[in-house]
Amino acid sequence: MKHIAFKILCILSLSVLPIFSPNIFAQSNKDSNIGEDIKVANQFVRSALTERKGYHLLKELTDMGPRLSGSENSLRAIMWAKKKMEEAGFDKVWLQPVMVPHWIRGNIEQAEIVKSKLFKNRKLSIATLGGSIGTGKNGITAEVLEVKNFDELKALGSKAKGKIIFMSRPLDPGIIETFRGYGEAVDQRVFGAVEAAKQGAIGVMIRSITTKYDNVPHTGVMIYNDTLPKIPAVALGYQDADFVSNALKKDPHLEVNIKLNCKTLPDTQSYNLIGELTGTEFPDQVIVVGGHSDSWDKGVGANDDGTGIMQSMEVLDLFKRLDIRPKRTIRCVFFINEENGSKGALKYGEYAKDAPEKTLAAIEADAGSGTPRGFSIDADSTTIAKFRSWLPILRKSSIDWVEKGGSGEDVGQIKNAIARIGYVPDPQRYFDYHHSDNDRFSIIHPREFELGSAAMAILVYMIDRQGL
Amino acid sequence: MKHIAFKILCILSLSVLPIFSPNIFAQSNKDSNIGEDIKVANQFVRSALTERKGYHLLKELTDMGPRLSGSENSLRAIMWAKKKMEEAGFDKVWLQPVMVPHWIRGNIEQAEIVKSKLFKNRKLSIATLGGSIGTGKNGITAEVLEVKNFDELKALGSKAKGKIIFMSRPLDPGIIETFRGYGEAVDQRVFGAVEAAKQGAIGVMIRSITTKYDNVPHTGVMIYNDTLPKIPAVALGYQDADFVSNALKKDPHLEVNIKLNCKTLPDTQSYNLIGELTGTEFPDQVIVVGGHSDSWDKGVGANDDGTGIMQSMEVLDLFKRLDIRPKRTIRCVFFINEENGSKGALKYGEYAKDAPEKTLAAIEADAGSGTPRGFSIDADSTTIAKFRSWLPILRKSSIDWVEKGGSGEDVGQIKNAIARIGYVPDPQRYFDYHHSDNDRFSIIHPREFELGSAAMAILVYMIDRQGL
Repeated sequence: MKHIAFKILCILSLSVLPIFSPNIFAQSNKDSNIGEDIKVANQFVRSALTERKGYHLLKELTDMGPRLSGSENSLRAIMWAKKKMEEAGFDKVWLQPVMVPHWIRGNIEQAEIVKSKLFKNRKLSIATLGGSIGTGKNGITAEVLEVKNFDELKALGSKAKGKIIFMSRPLDPGIIETFRGYGEAVDQRVFGAVEAAKQGAIGVMIRSITTKYDNVPHTGVMIYNDTLPKIPAVALGYQDADFVSNALKKDPHLEVNIKLNCKTLPDTQSYNLIGELTGTEFPDQVIVVGGHSDSWDKGVGANDDGTGIMQSMEVLDLFKRLDIRPKRTIRCVFFINEENGSKGALKYGEYAKDAPEKTLAAIEADAGSGTPRGFSIDADSTTIAKFRSWLPILRKSSIDWVEKGGSGEDVGQIKNAIARIGYVPDPQRYFDYHHSDNDRFSIIHPREFELGSAAMAILVYMIDRQGL
Repeated sequence: MKHIAFKILCILSLSVLPIFSPNIFAQSNKDSNIGEDIKVANQFVRSALTERKGYHLLKELTDMGPRLSGSENSLRAIMWAKKKMEEAGFDKVWLQPVMVPHWIRGNIEQAEIVKSKLFKNRKLSIATLGGSIGTGKNGITAEVLEVKNFDELKALGSKAKGKIIFMSRPLDPGIIETFRGYGEAVDQRVFGAVEAAKQGAIGVMIRSITTKYDNVPHTGVMIYNDTLPKIPAVALGYQDADFVSNALKKDPHLEVNIKLNCKTLPDTQSYNLIGELTGTEFPDQVIVVGGHSDSWDKGVGANDDGTGIMQSMEVLDLFKRLDIRPKRTIRCVFFINEENGSKGALKYGEYAKDAPEKTLAAIEADAGSGTPRGFSIDADSTTIAKFRSWLPILRKSSIDWVEKGGSGEDVGQIKNAIARIGYVPDPQRYFDYHHSDNDRFSIIHPREFELGSAAMAILVYMIDRQGL
């Protein structure tokens, strides 16, 4: 698209504007001065897009490396963020102690075809799944049996004994909702080791759960059942999953060796980080916005969930930048340990249950850095209708819908909130990066990221103005 | 975001689904079997996302290089696409002859600071603007005067005489609608040479009109006024625009030399390419979907507008893949010369005016390869209401809104269509690439691209089913 000369005047007269700024006033908005609210919304958007403060802080954060729960890096990042909140002039900043799991990947994760006429010595691109046991020094060596699901696994019966099970069902690319596609494939990763152990297998490999068809493996949490043998579990890069699948057709008896020296240490001390702007009129009415500070240890968690925490912090900072003193308390929470235990969310949920305050709303930012699309609200229909009446204002940040739906892993634990809310950016790229070395600062688009900060700031602003 | 073990069952029970598939049935849809339509919509989406045929063809197209009007490459691409339409089994495929401008960049485009105590020999990253005259062998050399707009330029008065004017106003990053930001800055590029020549300047440099702050220059069309001297015009990379701006503060008398050997040849023969599936019941009722086959000669026009033409072709191909015979004629049009003359659109508009057929709707795909957001409709309110009643179906492809608004440069010429429609994908990244070497196949996201094909196929399907 360009604009040829003789039409340029039409362009300058803004003829194309309606295309990119739909103005559907879905229902009347009696409680507010909508013109004033839209003006503030536009100011949030402008400040976010021009200053890019959250984006620049995300760069600093991710330069520190990954932030797996229990790691030194994770604590360092929390303390760095605490300092940033203090420097930004938040009214209160504090740490909430939480004991978290402490799993270490180690420095050995190798897989190789060690017996095959056709494919011997072919190395495979793998990532140990989070929580897996190690293999011992010589690793495990066995033939590989491929299955698509647990029914096929069970049907193997005694054939699975002593084998490595390869669970190869991909994230279904034909599903537009990538999070649903993920949800339909992730049982292989979480329960694969348990189900394979039931059949007597000695290890499990899964196809990485991703929408990107490169060879970068994607990790993520897996669990054991204490009544069953624990067996090592890894994810294969997507392309190597295809390779193994094809190789098994040509040589069903090839053998793979897997060596891992990961291990689980005792639980260790960590923290939720909390910062707030205290409300001037109703300090005990709290609006929470948050994400999780921990990440997987592949990549640097730029998208998952460095984005969510830096946006959450920027929501409060945007109020400071616009010099708006909130009537109610706005609190950003960096939950710890969302990835492998949710200990931080459980701790904050307990706190909120007993605290002498009321959580009006809790917004979770943990779906990546895409352009804003909507808010998914877990609340009663009256509350949702109120949120929906704010659509003309929310649209200024590219939010097109407000719907009843789930919220998130972390704010879902704040059971007594009037509304638990999931911020929903565009989801198409999210699983390209998720839990892998692809999740780096370079994949963050500054405008799309910043619009997320603005969208949540606008929502928080409306809740602060009107209450719930 | 991940899903911890004890919550995995909630996920598998689809608790997160509502987040990503809002189901707002905005108004009743009496004329159609909505369940059946949604089923077809989901099939379009699945076929697009899993087969990625348009995306793979875009790779082939862009491997051929850029496609500036009048160039050999452009003709080669048109003939390649004609063959692809024939291979896809379209009912009719034909060429519509169009004479187009033939501007050649040449192999010299250089700019350098040649006189300055501080910055001598500093080279500048530039792109000649499309349509510019060359400079002669020795180039032009002059002091540089920076202005932000034409008012400042006029205020220079006789000081501008013999100088190179540097128009440095950026695309305003604080505007969320990137196309509006572009519209507000592009006067500098289009009219800069005319306005500078009025003041006696001998050349013009503009800051690249972009949302990406790298140093890749962005070209685009500019015009002359035959009653004024023609002066050379170039775009500076964004970073070098900052550099020059700062350098001028330290050394206001620095001199820049610009050498260009671009030239304009006589108009030459080219073509609109048209392919159709002929309607079984109402062959003279036509639904057009199209983009432009020409591109600028920086990059390969993957986003602008290789995307639009490959999506348009895929709309018809999706009907073939799903074995749906349309009742009405569905026609894809690859307009030629959108970038610097719109000769193709004018030609097709003339044809449509006199043809023994009725254009029901004409959809333009020329806003890039982002995830679908909406359709902007230039039609009467009854027609728009009808389109809006299809939102529950369109949403299956991530379309969230249907609004009254402009359509596009090309379909805008089909004056007698009942509806002219602009397909609107997410616009945040578009001007990162636009008219520059950044516009390459690697920046296309396959899922986001393919959802565009599906979104337009669904809209065309609904028009075909229900008429207008």
